[in-house]
Amino acid sequence: MSNNTILSDLVDSLKCLPGVGPKSALRLAYHLLQRDRLGANQLSITISKALDKLNACDLCNNFTESKICSLCESTSRDDSLLCIVEMPTDLLMMEQTHSFKGHYYVLMGRLSPLDGIGPKELNLSKLIDRIKKSNFKEIIIATNFTSEGNATAQYIKDILTNTNFKVTRIARGLPMGGEIEYVDSGTLAQALEDRKNI
Amino acid sequence: MSNNTILSDLVDSLKCLPGVGPKSALRLAYHLLQRDRLGANQLSITISKALDKLNACDLCNNFTESKICSLCESTSRDDSLLCIVEMPTDLLMMEQTHSFKGHYYVLMGRLSPLDGIGPKELNLSKLIDRIKKSNFKEIIIATNFTSEGNATAQYIKDILTNTNFKVTRIARGLPMGGEIEYVDSGTLAQALEDRKNI
Repeated sequence: MSNNTILSDLVDSLKCLPGVGPKSALRLAYHLLQRDRLGANQLSITISKALDKLNACDLCNNFTESKICSLCESTSRDDSLLCIVEMPTDLLMMEQTHSFKGHYYVLMGRLSPLDGIGPKELNLSKLIDRIKKSNFKEIIIATNFTSEGNATAQYIKDILTNTNFKVTRIARGLPMGGEIEYVDSGTLAQALEDRKNI
Repeated sequence: MSNNTILSDLVDSLKCLPGVGPKSALRLAYHLLQRDRLGANQLSITISKALDKLNACDLCNNFTESKICSLCESTSRDDSLLCIVEMPTDLLMMEQTHSFKGHYYVLMGRLSPLDGIGPKELNLSKLIDRIKKSNFKEIIIATNFTSEGNATAQYIKDILTNTNFKVTRIARGLPMGGEIEYVDSGTLAQALEDRKNI
């Protein structure tokens, strides 16, 4: 190995994938070289193409090939709703529910002071700009229910107080099919607190 | 997603990695685009470089940048021993034991009639050529102890009968630290059969 720098370069760069350590990187490298050279070539091309051509949508921050992404351009979406999510994958999950027809804004992260990510690093001014220039009535904050996601939600809410926007947060509670016996006490406490009339 | 062909091309080509399905491919794609663009670029470059520059060693079949790999070229190895393994990773494992100082031959596979891999596809004639042209005394067959690995070992042994080479197979038995109570009965039966004087 030590004499084969091209192979060890490949192994090293495969380690950039999440969850891939030295051993699996080696296994992946041999798989690509041995069993799937066509796929490996394709992978190399598509990565470099994606890095080159995909950029952030001017409006929602999600990855797109053009200036404005297809979701933002769509005329069939509800212009009065904006949903703020942390990551593009969160947006995808929301879309898969088929129960939200408004617009999105992808933060591309969350406030995380420990990692040095503050409001400036998150470029929250772009979000504020977007909100000011549009006709939204309700801003739905759909960041994760982690401490960082909650802090981000609170921060955005604080910015938007004293404005005319209705600011909401997606609900916490028991999951679909959830049984009270097995749910953690934090979730149950929250479900109790957020109880609603039926 | 459906409108973003570059992204979905990337996701599709990430699926060529073993153990990566549609969901983790998407996760990997976003990771590369979002959190590790430098690593992604490096990955794209090293894959294409490896595909381009790495070829099979003329002697042992392992991946190398030159015509003959460093192991085959080394003058400090024992010229009387040849160890036949299925894959480059097997060679690496053997090297890590530090208990074999001979030469290697990598089959780059195993006989597997169900997958259409016969002696011709494995290019066993290259192995026979190598053996004929060298001064080996002993040929150690270190294919896996799967049915295909065993069949491959038997096939190579059959070719080498009526020659002067001593043909051996690595031992089967209990693993280091193995406890009889927990070992499978096949392994235990083999360990019994292959018992040796102490």
